[in-house]
Amino acid sequence: MRKFTQAVVLAIILAAWGVAAPSGASATEPLPSVPPIPADNTMSHEKVELGKMLFFEPRLSASGVVSCATCHNPSMAFTDRVPRALGHNHQVGPRNTPTVLNAAFLDNQFWDGRSPSLEDQALGPIQNTIEMAGSLEETVETLKGIPEYRATFAAVFGGDDPVTPGNVAKAIAAFERTLITYNSPFDRYLMGDENDISREAWAGWKLFRQKGFVTCHSGPNFTNSGFYAIQVPGSKDLGRYEVTGKEADKYKFRVQSLRNIALTYPYFNNGSVWDLDQAVRIMAREMLNTEPTDKEVERIVAFLHTLTGEMPEFVYPVLP
Amino acid sequence: MRKFTQAVVLAIILAAWGVAAPSGASATEPLPSVPPIPADNTMSHEKVELGKMLFFEPRLSASGVVSCATCHNPSMAFTDRVPRALGHNHQVGPRNTPTVLNAAFLDNQFWDGRSPSLEDQALGPIQNTIEMAGSLEETVETLKGIPEYRATFAAVFGGDDPVTPGNVAKAIAAFERTLITYNSPFDRYLMGDENDISREAWAGWKLFRQKGFVTCHSGPNFTNSGFYAIQVPGSKDLGRYEVTGKEADKYKFRVQSLRNIALTYPYFNNGSVWDLDQAVRIMAREMLNTEPTDKEVERIVAFLHTLTGEMPEFVYPVLP
Repeated sequence: MRKFTQAVVLAIILAAWGVAAPSGASATEPLPSVPPIPADNTMSHEKVELGKMLFFEPRLSASGVVSCATCHNPSMAFTDRVPRALGHNHQVGPRNTPTVLNAAFLDNQFWDGRSPSLEDQALGPIQNTIEMAGSLEETVETLKGIPEYRATFAAVFGGDDPVTPGNVAKAIAAFERTLITYNSPFDRYLMGDENDISREAWAGWKLFRQKGFVTCHSGPNFTNSGFYAIQVPGSKDLGRYEVTGKEADKYKFRVQSLRNIALTYPYFNNGSVWDLDQAVRIMAREMLNTEPTDKEVERIVAFLHTLTGEMPEFVYPVLP
Repeated sequence: MRKFTQAVVLAIILAAWGVAAPSGASATEPLPSVPPIPADNTMSHEKVELGKMLFFEPRLSASGVVSCATCHNPSMAFTDRVPRALGHNHQVGPRNTPTVLNAAFLDNQFWDGRSPSLEDQALGPIQNTIEMAGSLEETVETLKGIPEYRATFAAVFGGDDPVTPGNVAKAIAAFERTLITYNSPFDRYLMGDENDISREAWAGWKLFRQKGFVTCHSGPNFTNSGFYAIQVPGSKDLGRYEVTGKEADKYKFRVQSLRNIALTYPYFNNGSVWDLDQAVRIMAREMLNTEPTDKEVERIVAFLHTLTGEMPEFVYPVLP
């Protein structure tokens, strides 16, 4: 809880100064203390608490039982550990649920990068017919019908009509910016404590660079935010092509962060691969045209395990 | 967190002495500090933590996305706030989800009392085809396949083969025995602080006794554990008859606890009633053959609000 409070305090200070933390940097660095915060959505404790309530609020969905937390399950590193997400009426979606952890550091959201910000992203699943199947009008009506929400939105956002889709998105995004996994063994290693990772993991980190994984999985969040074509077993997903309509974007997906990758199985856009060593082999073969030995894979996997940070700890919100 | 720890410590002491707290007492008393604890399922911190993990574990279900916490949502007083539960493939169940809060004080579980204990109850929804649709064999196989669970079951239960359905049930039940809502305004009033409830609530408490609600809703948990026939709007549910096959049990349900009743809407076996004042009117008419005035209903509802205790606070379990 201490770190969370520090992060929020720092966030407020940075936002007040109009300073944004850098993103997309290519150097290997520990996760910054604070993710980039948009100037029009500064952080406050009250806004984060409201966002937490909304993140857990199943009444934003048509059925009344699906919330953001249903698929982005905090007990499972904010994913669902099934190949593809089950949403409204347990319909199976086309893609694997990405974690929300450290999503605040991404330059774009969703597998195909179709959303430029957490604020923009937050309203997507609410309206998606196979996710929450709600509508923004109904969402706002539902929230306006609950006196505690009316009061909280007014306290956080002010104005005559504070319960708006835009403010729902801002509050959820503010909460998500607190879901950062600090202090992984690899971060501690980078900060100078060389004993925090094993010799095997250290060798894996060296291989990770030598083999070229680091070309795409670069910077503090281990993604360069670029889009690359890949077809994993069983996938016919056209990826970013469905966003841009450009032939060159067929089968392209945004490079995924590798932070907490040991927890966010199964892997790839269709969740077809359960084992991290198999995922490493597929990436090596498909993207780097190399076939690492068993020993090399073992070492790279040992390195990837050092990217598991401390899960954000928080108590359940009590919904009105 | 302080109270939780106290409760667990007390629980261990009581269990060690073989003393069980009384249940079904008819006097109006504050909730006891500790619920009855069976001699063969003593409490330990480790067992409660394992039970919490299992309570939130969606891999106990056939789909991999439904856990106990899906319908018994901690953010909603361990209910789901929909008329009838949505389970496997979002099939709608026959009855409203009862809260787990203070269920440890009940003499029997489920609306129709078909289960004698929390341990027995816990395995029902896992196997129910419209709830989690799992099987105990698969549950045990799944848990055995996860090294952290194997180690934790061994540490908690010992023995050669600790991952068993019986131990799953014991751990979940142990966790549920910590879900007690202490320190409601009414409990504080009973303990001598007369300013903790309003004059209106006080008048409601008087009416609650005068009109006879207290006949069934008696004792510290506001239920005498008896079964009574009731048909609420829209219900054709045969209730306890489906358990016993006795004509005399048709339409009978176990008297519900009124603790946290302001949070556990919608009401009745089919969740057909959303407003507490309407629920009070229906109960008065159907069970007590009386028609309270608007003012009387208002006072009784004010009293019922004083039965909302402090929600148990705990951080999310992180699942392996």
